[in-house]
Amino acid sequence: MDTAPEAPAGSPFTSPAQARAAFRAGLDRPTAGLCPGFTQTNLLAVPREHAFDFLLFAQRNPKPMPIIGVLEAGQTSSPLLQGGDIRTDVPAYRIYRNGELAETVTDATAFWRDDIVSFLIGCSFTFETALLAAGIDIAHISQNVNVPMYRTSIDTEPAGIFSGPLVVSMRPLPANQVAEAVRITSRYPAVHGAPVHIGNPAEIGIRDLGNPDYGDAVTIPDGHLPVFWACGVTPQAALLAARPEIAIAHSPGKMLITDARDAEFQVP
Amino acid sequence: MDTAPEAPAGSPFTSPAQARAAFRAGLDRPTAGLCPGFTQTNLLAVPREHAFDFLLFAQRNPKPMPIIGVLEAGQTSSPLLQGGDIRTDVPAYRIYRNGELAETVTDATAFWRDDIVSFLIGCSFTFETALLAAGIDIAHISQNVNVPMYRTSIDTEPAGIFSGPLVVSMRPLPANQVAEAVRITSRYPAVHGAPVHIGNPAEIGIRDLGNPDYGDAVTIPDGHLPVFWACGVTPQAALLAARPEIAIAHSPGKMLITDARDAEFQVP
Repeated sequence: MDTAPEAPAGSPFTSPAQARAAFRAGLDRPTAGLCPGFTQTNLLAVPREHAFDFLLFAQRNPKPMPIIGVLEAGQTSSPLLQGGDIRTDVPAYRIYRNGELAETVTDATAFWRDDIVSFLIGCSFTFETALLAAGIDIAHISQNVNVPMYRTSIDTEPAGIFSGPLVVSMRPLPANQVAEAVRITSRYPAVHGAPVHIGNPAEIGIRDLGNPDYGDAVTIPDGHLPVFWACGVTPQAALLAARPEIAIAHSPGKMLITDARDAEFQVP
Repeated sequence: MDTAPEAPAGSPFTSPAQARAAFRAGLDRPTAGLCPGFTQTNLLAVPREHAFDFLLFAQRNPKPMPIIGVLEAGQTSSPLLQGGDIRTDVPAYRIYRNGELAETVTDATAFWRDDIVSFLIGCSFTFETALLAAGIDIAHISQNVNVPMYRTSIDTEPAGIFSGPLVVSMRPLPANQVAEAVRITSRYPAVHGAPVHIGNPAEIGIRDLGNPDYGDAVTIPDGHLPVFWACGVTPQAALLAARPEIAIAHSPGKMLITDARDAEFQVP
């Protein structure tokens, strides 16, 4: 990518670069629906001593943690965020110390270290554009809230210091659109792919859909099923057991908007 | 996988475990066409100090190096090779010292170290079963030789100490079957996916199809096009520049036969 691409008309931003500049300047808001057609990613950044364990954790759990890009120690930009800075261009960051959430900030520069390796992880917002194009309503977009996310009773496959529960995002769908949503999202394995669970939240340890662990609750219309996709917040849930000295993540639902196009991640 | 699966009738082995046992006992032969339906993998094993660099190299170059499994330092078996031993169950191994091929052996046990991490990398033999099922002849199988492989002038994306040329495997196909072969192999992104180049070998730096860098030449019938797929021997070509103290790889075309089924790697 030699020049920064432009977002389609209708977005509050004309390009991913413009969105990143607004976040760099301090704008703090969820990113669902912004810059449609461009790929959004989760962030998890850890010291280099844990980088192999984390990359292996992601390789073993590709549904929640598809790796879109890696910024090596000392790198703060990449072709995925042309002219950008990973320390400032996400709307909000969570700073974890010894696995505990220490604070939430809009600029992570003060917490960065030379040995930090940043992992950019695919996000289900990528396939939302394709769902909308098929006439499927996305509740958290039409209700103008953050996507609801839940810790589940499903275990990830551990690697090194990392282990923990699968986190899922949820979108309620009418029964006659569930199959079409499965078909469409199956074509995006690099950004979570097909749902991991359809209906029956209790079976995966979710007691109250109205009380998500991350993000906001959405109103579920009568006759709609909750449909669950693997979520890139999963590594944040793994920090509790891993307890790295420091880890820096995006604030759930507030993603990095990259210059990559969703279409790059579509399979036949 | 609780019990070792069985291979279909017609294979010289009744199961992947039986094939591995034969290789463990010293059998040395190419593995194309063996245990159809079961996934074969390339091997690259390096000391732990280089493991992050290599896993990142694979993540950045998923076409030649799709990671199917990783055996961490100290592990010599995995659910992918139930009851097996990665040090003995490949027909032949190449031992590299400081990036140079030092020797080829059928048992790598004497060269193993406690800090060795083994990467199992997807192999195009996986989609050959699907090509055969569609009535597409595979030249190296019908001619009973090893698949031809070539170093190209296409560069991989570097990571840490690893860089080097893309290595490709080649299958000649009649013009009216090329599109169908693209369609079929596109459905297997985890084992190299669609071809990287069709026809015109000179354009990717291949001067003489009759003189492959690895494996054997095949006879190319009149009117057939050479079709090139990314190959899991690519990391062996990267050893020359990386120069790790030791690296252990499979001998090209002589793969690990795992208990995983090809169908697991198919996308819609």
